[in-house]
Amino acid sequence: METTTYGFGRTVPLSFVDAVEQVKEALNQEGFGVLTEIDISATLRDKISVEFEPYIILGACNPQLAHRALQAEHEIGLLLPCNVIVHAHGDHTTRITMMDPQAALSIVENDAIDPIATEARDRLQRALMAVDDSGSGMKE
Amino acid sequence: METTTYGFGRTVPLSFVDAVEQVKEALNQEGFGVLTEIDISATLRDKISVEFEPYIILGACNPQLAHRALQAEHEIGLLLPCNVIVHAHGDHTTRITMMDPQAALSIVENDAIDPIATEARDRLQRALMAVDDSGSGMKE
Repeated sequence: METTTYGFGRTVPLSFVDAVEQVKEALNQEGFGVLTEIDISATLRDKISVEFEPYIILGACNPQLAHRALQAEHEIGLLLPCNVIVHAHGDHTTRITMMDPQAALSIVENDAIDPIATEARDRLQRALMAVDDSGSGMKE
Repeated sequence: METTTYGFGRTVPLSFVDAVEQVKEALNQEGFGVLTEIDISATLRDKISVEFEPYIILGACNPQLAHRALQAEHEIGLLLPCNVIVHAHGDHTTRITMMDPQAALSIVENDAIDPIATEARDRLQRALMAVDDSGSGMKE
């Protein structure tokens, strides 16, 4: 797993389409539904006629954690849902990155948010590592 | 305008439905389309049978600014779109709050993002102040 100041990710030997499917399944296993999907390449093409690689932003939400967060900090909706991005690197390699809830929520000055962010981070990291990359183009 | 560490907002004398409509129009005037809508009360009711006030998360995106941000920092999709939340305080008062792009993007260590975050903030603040609250229940 690779980390940045605000996210963690993996590069997997899957097509873009397969990676999107696998990460949704892995998120689901950790209690995150995907509430929103933004197809960046389609949006940039439609709105400003710019070509961009396949790149999608998934909005992942665990309802129990979201409800606890909203009770602790009513305006926390500004930082929900947890974003997961998937973008293509060639035909058979795809990068999956998840927003680090602890980094994002560090700008909220509310200690009650900390344990919720920690649980969200643990669940997202498990989902990331559970993405099954065995279904690559190498299948027989 | 009221500010927190990660957002700025206004409380307006509009119904929830009118406030959602007005803020979408104001965002549009500043070049932000609404790409996603999460109805928090419906989601919590459906998924975990919890009642919550009318509360919506709008994902606002200015395609030119998003494209510049993606070119400056490829993983910035983790912090897009800009969230705008609208929630009801009684039948005729509604709170509108917007994520402060400068706060959210402060966790990204990339100076090239600063001018883009500043422009996004300026546009969002203009949109917030442009929300027409004259169409309240006080109409004759």
